[in-house]
Amino acid sequence: MNLADLETPRLVLDASKMEANISRMKRHLAGLGVQLRPHVKTCKSIEVARRLMETPAGPIAVSTLKEAEQFLENGVTDILYAVGIAPAKLDHVVALRSRGADLCVVVDSIEAAHAVATRRADIPALIEIDCDGHRAGVKPGDPVLLDIAATLSGGTVLRGVMTHAGDAYNCRTTEAIAAMAEQERRAVVESAAMLRDAGHAAPVVSVGSTPTATFARNLEGVTEVRAGVFVFQDLVMAGLGVCGVEDIAVSVLATVIGHRKDKGWIITDGGWMAMSRDRGTATQAVDQGYGVVCDASGTPVEDLIVADANQEHGIVGRRGGGALDVTRYPLGTRLRILPNHACATVAQHDSYHVVRQDQKVIDHWPRFNGW
Amino acid sequence: MNLADLETPRLVLDASKMEANISRMKRHLAGLGVQLRPHVKTCKSIEVARRLMETPAGPIAVSTLKEAEQFLENGVTDILYAVGIAPAKLDHVVALRSRGADLCVVVDSIEAAHAVATRRADIPALIEIDCDGHRAGVKPGDPVLLDIAATLSGGTVLRGVMTHAGDAYNCRTTEAIAAMAEQERRAVVESAAMLRDAGHAAPVVSVGSTPTATFARNLEGVTEVRAGVFVFQDLVMAGLGVCGVEDIAVSVLATVIGHRKDKGWIITDGGWMAMSRDRGTATQAVDQGYGVVCDASGTPVEDLIVADANQEHGIVGRRGGGALDVTRYPLGTRLRILPNHACATVAQHDSYHVVRQDQKVIDHWPRFNGW
Repeated sequence: MNLADLETPRLVLDASKMEANISRMKRHLAGLGVQLRPHVKTCKSIEVARRLMETPAGPIAVSTLKEAEQFLENGVTDILYAVGIAPAKLDHVVALRSRGADLCVVVDSIEAAHAVATRRADIPALIEIDCDGHRAGVKPGDPVLLDIAATLSGGTVLRGVMTHAGDAYNCRTTEAIAAMAEQERRAVVESAAMLRDAGHAAPVVSVGSTPTATFARNLEGVTEVRAGVFVFQDLVMAGLGVCGVEDIAVSVLATVIGHRKDKGWIITDGGWMAMSRDRGTATQAVDQGYGVVCDASGTPVEDLIVADANQEHGIVGRRGGGALDVTRYPLGTRLRILPNHACATVAQHDSYHVVRQDQKVIDHWPRFNGW
Repeated sequence: MNLADLETPRLVLDASKMEANISRMKRHLAGLGVQLRPHVKTCKSIEVARRLMETPAGPIAVSTLKEAEQFLENGVTDILYAVGIAPAKLDHVVALRSRGADLCVVVDSIEAAHAVATRRADIPALIEIDCDGHRAGVKPGDPVLLDIAATLSGGTVLRGVMTHAGDAYNCRTTEAIAAMAEQERRAVVESAAMLRDAGHAAPVVSVGSTPTATFARNLEGVTEVRAGVFVFQDLVMAGLGVCGVEDIAVSVLATVIGHRKDKGWIITDGGWMAMSRDRGTATQAVDQGYGVVCDASGTPVEDLIVADANQEHGIVGRRGGGALDVTRYPLGTRLRILPNHACATVAQHDSYHVVRQDQKVIDHWPRFNGW
């Protein structure tokens, strides 16, 4: 089967690009002496995860218990649920642990620690540290860290600390990302030291984000790096300098369904239902609209972007609205659109159509959504 | 089962509000003497569609052939595929027609008309008219309309004309929407007259969008109205004056997983994966962030919105960032979030948990995605 045989829109994954992205990250982290714990919230596919994981059993990080469940069914047992635990989800956590998952949870408050500890199920936990004021977590140096650790000690296993430098997405230079990686590292290494000084083992010191993982120069004291989107890369990552546009491994195959010659528009069947509503590049130096338009081989053409999108219509035009000879893209022409945010775009699809550089579909990998 | 028993995030549908939305629209259109052809791209659920349709066989409008396929399997046969047809999809159209679907396609160019006609399968077609410069379609009065009609006559059945006033979403007043409804009506009524003057029957004159359907005062010459989002309503529609916030029938149930007291943030497990990345209210007078926050009963509380969202984290704060006593929302508190754009938010979920005013889950309706 060829890409030309697929009814559109469909999600395409270039396995060669994906493998190069994986190798690059693994090489970099191996050089820094830390383990990769791939975040499978991006791919939600066992086929992709198998190419990411060090062993068939993991490790992985997940963002939902559905992911933990699905990957456990496929033999993955070393799982970090990297989102603060809701007390009502602890029964589900215990059920997954009883089925063989070494499932570890995350807490950032005495209330959450208390909920985990009083469950009395020896659920392992990491304490989340806030390295950048971005989202959740205990501020580095805040003595509440020791209160949380003491609360956990009552009925659970304190594994250590974790953080996520989400603010790295707002950095303007790769130098700033490298500085953020060091800030991320110090936040958890110092927090782990604080725990150890108080008599807690805290063997795990976990950091992660694709930008900081890419530009980190020193990860001393860190035991693992969580990163997800690097496996596919995307336009937001390209805008940050994390990758080149040519490294992006996923695209949405779409078909030209009409034209507006007067406006220089090509209309395709790749709307926001196929691309997602993510406009992550809107605040970057180069706004890529709803995605960069490539020809059927995956090469960007004529500075075209998806300038606007309705549910099942993509409006393709030149960046900035310049004149375009739309007759070069007759009705039925196949295009491939590179996404702003891979996690959001692939989530709009139920499977990957796998190619390897050319347009021959060599595999078809299912993915899942939900909670 | 109660909402409190559901693992979060989950999609909730208040059937009472939905039924009121449906009744209101049907009453209004009956008063104007036109038929409703509900656009089921919003719900993608046969259970919801059954409450919308005039008969078990339809009519409906769909945005994908997957919708046509799924609804046909449930006995719906009167189907308009309201997105310009890609020639490569005609085999699929013919297959669905051979299975009993009276499936009608849309064209807006001689090229597309030629593709449909040369298929020689008597596929019925509507010609799309561009009433507002928003997207696809033939401009009213453009003589190419007759060339397209003549091309279709070769091997298909010209049913008539259709248009969609997508620009109504950008109107600032309900008066402007009413004027847009009249512009929408005139565009197709005049185009139908042009076709009839040239000897084409053109029995169908189809318009549609929830805003114009709501504020249309005269639909003389129109035979049917397509509208979708009115069934659930959403914050974008409330911002346009189409409905009140209290009419919104869908919400995302989420759980408090943490706090940032210093920032006045409540962190929930309702991130953009549960809400979608849609920020449709960002350009309206009142920006609702990623959604308006309600208590578990569905009533908005303390002017809270989802101010920011990560994949599985919603960051809830007061609109404008004012001080908030986060201790009123302890860990584990259930909240319900009203969406910017119902079509985008419900597409992030695989089913509706149906309630009727209170929090008892009375039904569970599957929905589907894909192409």
